[in-house]
Amino acid sequence: MILGVGDDAAVVRARPLCVTSIDTMVEGVHFHLGGDWADAAEVGHRALAGALSDLAAMGAEAGEAYVALGLPKGFTEDEALALIAAAADLAEETGATIAGGDVVAAPALMITIAAVGWAESPEQLVRRDGAKVGDAIGVTGELGAAAAALAVLEGRAPRSPGAQPALARARQPVPRLREGRALAGAGAHAMIDLSDGLATDAGHIGRASGVELCIDAAALPLAAGVAEVAAALSLEPWRLAAVGGEDYELCFCVSSAERGPVERALTATGGAGVSWIGEVGEGAPGCTVSAEGSDPLRVEGFEHRW
Amino acid sequence: MILGVGDDAAVVRARPLCVTSIDTMVEGVHFHLGGDWADAAEVGHRALAGALSDLAAMGAEAGEAYVALGLPKGFTEDEALALIAAAADLAEETGATIAGGDVVAAPALMITIAAVGWAESPEQLVRRDGAKVGDAIGVTGELGAAAAALAVLEGRAPRSPGAQPALARARQPVPRLREGRALAGAGAHAMIDLSDGLATDAGHIGRASGVELCIDAAALPLAAGVAEVAAALSLEPWRLAAVGGEDYELCFCVSSAERGPVERALTATGGAGVSWIGEVGEGAPGCTVSAEGSDPLRVEGFEHRW
Repeated sequence: MILGVGDDAAVVRARPLCVTSIDTMVEGVHFHLGGDWADAAEVGHRALAGALSDLAAMGAEAGEAYVALGLPKGFTEDEALALIAAAADLAEETGATIAGGDVVAAPALMITIAAVGWAESPEQLVRRDGAKVGDAIGVTGELGAAAAALAVLEGRAPRSPGAQPALARARQPVPRLREGRALAGAGAHAMIDLSDGLATDAGHIGRASGVELCIDAAALPLAAGVAEVAAALSLEPWRLAAVGGEDYELCFCVSSAERGPVERALTATGGAGVSWIGEVGEGAPGCTVSAEGSDPLRVEGFEHRW
Repeated sequence: MILGVGDDAAVVRARPLCVTSIDTMVEGVHFHLGGDWADAAEVGHRALAGALSDLAAMGAEAGEAYVALGLPKGFTEDEALALIAAAADLAEETGATIAGGDVVAAPALMITIAAVGWAESPEQLVRRDGAKVGDAIGVTGELGAAAAALAVLEGRAPRSPGAQPALARARQPVPRLREGRALAGAGAHAMIDLSDGLATDAGHIGRASGVELCIDAAALPLAAGVAEVAAALSLEPWRLAAVGGEDYELCFCVSSAERGPVERALTATGGAGVSWIGEVGEGAPGCTVSAEGSDPLRVEGFEHRW
């Protein structure tokens, strides 16, 4: 970084490709403050994790984060500093730098983060539109913790000891940056991060690639605590894993023959492992999650536009 | 641009230096919607103008803008599209590209823009901290329209025909990108854009550079309508020019000997002209605006921190 916080703009030395995403979280919409809900530090961590997760999904290397905060009346300076400190901690863990920001008054706590990543060439990056019929579908880590935690926080499921691991995990999502780069290097054809939920996000890959992602509900890797919460909700556990947002794992499609190299590449990162959850078919573009004894869950995806 | 809206992140080919600023505007804080106040298109224009103005103040070339929108209940899709269309129009005029964004629900209209600019080398950019004793202080365009417009909109001054030009100008601020590059090329030692008001922003240069910016109130270029509104407020007109924010002109310091080349360089842009408004002295770091018959206005500036 040549010039950081304190001038009109930050200045950094660039690498050949600049990869940028912007994400906003708003109190009352994406999180609640206080009580059992989030504290300021958690909001800072989650906002940056979500922004960096988009870079992970491209296979980019994390660069800089620019943080715009809208602070409501009653939100203290200590809370604001705790929020930024948590984001700075995550930045340090992931090799990112908080290089600039803006602080304004707002009617509710709002945090927008523009995350900038870098790559050397287009071939190092993975888009959504490259999935091929016959590809294996993989997912990193475990799913469903965020949906389970939400059910507990909203009082739809009891705060039992069994639910605690899901709550803990949902409070501290990990952007899968190393895994994203490893998957890009191992030849993933298409990749997305799970911010809206596996079925929806896999549907985006399907729609962008013109293929059907056929996912086997029984193969979904469940985070600790998900089965307990699902039982309390009288739901099959896979539904929390397939539909819940904000798990921030990566879903990707890769040649079936490359599954071994992908597993080795992920192991080498020391990070999350992989589960193989289905196959790319030539049905209607989108995503279908099939489970024995249930109707399949079908998501068409949608086109982003404005 | 290699990859735009619709994947996890946008991808653009970089140039050697990446110059980035992030700015937020919130309804009820930075603007009001409806009636005589702003409409959606004006909000889109002003938000992007403010973000690009920071790039102008560095002497950077405009690159991409990433737009995060928080939309309140009752804000229609047509309004959202008008907001984006106005930003897209300004982007086209200035050579910028809206390359990504996010849209969420929010309790009030909020818009955060991360503006990314580019430069070939650090020498092409101008910081705040290079002002030297003896430098001439220049400002582009005219000042005070935004403060005059605010006084009218808040009902502190009448909506007289004489005030109309200030209102019109305040609704459509122009980021001085060409002027910023020309000033950087002509050897400006320090530069800032006027978002908080001339005295405050010049105070930032003074504090960052360890010098006193001595400004002559009588030399301030007044925008059309400012004198009329000032009279209605029983204020000396220079006060609106010195204190009002959001004029988005550029204030800069340059060797006294370079005034001729600076004037020619600005003329060559076909954009705003220059007024010479003072000189850099060795007094206490900050900015002092002196006017005959009044106490001087003194701003120390402050350090940005978090």
